Amino acid sequence: MNALIVAGGTPPSGALLQEVVRRKKPFILAADRGAKVLLDQGIAFEVAVGDFDSLDEDSQGALRDRAKVTIYPRAKDFTDTFAAYRAAREQGAKQIVLLGGTGSRIDHLLANIGLLQQALADSIRMTLLDDHNQINLLNQSQEIPKGPFPYLSFSALGQTVPHFSLQGVRYPLTDHSLRFGSGLTVSNEFQAPFASVRFKEGLVLMLQTSDEPFLEALPQVPDWSF
Amino acid sequence: MNALIVAGGTPPSGALLQEVVRRKKPFILAADRGAKVLLDQGIAFEVAVGDFDSLDEDSQGALRDRAKVTIYPRAKDFTDTFAAYRAAREQGAKQIVLLGGTGSRIDHLLANIGLLQQALADSIRMTLLDDHNQINLLNQSQEIPKGPFPYLSFSALGQTVPHFSLQGVRYPLTDHSLRFGSGLTVSNEFQAPFASVRFKEGLVLMLQTSDEPFLEALPQVPDWSF
Repeated sequence: MNALIVAGGTPPSGALLQEVVRRKKPFILAADRGAKVLLDQGIAFEVAVGDFDSLDEDSQGALRDRAKVTIYPRAKDFTDTFAAYRAAREQGAKQIVLLGGTGSRIDHLLANIGLLQQALADSIRMTLLDDHNQINLLNQSQEIPKGPFPYLSFSALGQTVPHFSLQGVRYPLTDHSLRFGSGLTVSNEFQAPFASVRFKEGLVLMLQTSDEPFLEALPQVPDWSF
Repeated sequence: MNALIVAGGTPPSGALLQEVVRRKKPFILAADRGAKVLLDQGIAFEVAVGDFDSLDEDSQGALRDRAKVTIYPRAKDFTDTFAAYRAAREQGAKQIVLLGGTGSRIDHLLANIGLLQQALADSIRMTLLDDHNQINLLNQSQEIPKGPFPYLSFSALGQTVPHFSLQGVRYPLTDHSLRFGSGLTVSNEFQAPFASVRFKEGLVLMLQTSDEPFLEALPQVPDWSF
């Protein structure tokens, strides 16, 4: 089962939100101000987490009127996004897309990247997506299909990843020691329909990125994996 | 010597940029589109790194007219921000503030967090700053003075940091195993003039954050450490 969590960071464009809903037909959960984004776009959802103090009267009323929505109160020891993640896992989600997980609060972004690590441990395929970035965490070698993003970047998460190799790209790498936050592995580009990512141990954060909102730049929505 | 690097991410507000210049009296370097931010604000700078293709005619002319500016061409194997960092280090900078190091490209953000790690190795005190976040990387225990940001968050960088303790805050911690991207250590708050951060090994990313631009929310610019 696919799940979509919309969190309270920078709202995704309507185009991106609608595209994810159309393609994944997900079970939809709102974390915090993500509820307003879904209400504004007229998209029904099943679960909402937060206290919704920040919602205006109309939105609070709209939320109360949706009898089917299960509302979880705000928790003290973890973020609303984590609570929504847990609810998605309880629903049996095998794949989760997180929108609204990026924005001006970088501590929230890091916690959401931390959720990717939790998802790997739970054998859930999770993607952190916004209009400029698609972020996945890899724990094994794989072939990555070329998508609509012009750039392909990598960073180790945690310890340095030894023997990292990358083919099918403009700047290939062989037996590279991939560190966290390396400038060398930023802004690579696909040169083949698939990029081959090879490593034997560690966690690799893969970022497919775009300077401009990637859906706006395209004449038609591409068929891409996320 | 203090240095300021303005990079090509989301431009800092004029208030923040001017405040850093006023307080640090820094040697100023521009990376990529950071040059335009400085030109627009009428702030003189010494070094510029990039190809400046993206600058309009007027800005390119203004850049050429500044005879004192040393211009480095764009490099292939590292980011313009890294090149500016290296130039600051060569100038003998002991403290560096990076503005414009955050924005929509999360791969660039991670590379800039990677620069904090490089700076620690070079014994340079470096801060990644924007209107919502002040980010520092700590490799030893210290007392953190309360600043203008309402939230205080922590994440391990790399391996889990054992025996992490935190006092002087609303939710203190003792002998905590600090992981990367932990939701538990997000959005803590100062409850004393100083927060005490204690740990024996590892790297701790400290994020002081604000939902609203922190300088706008304040009646007068506070005296804070960055």
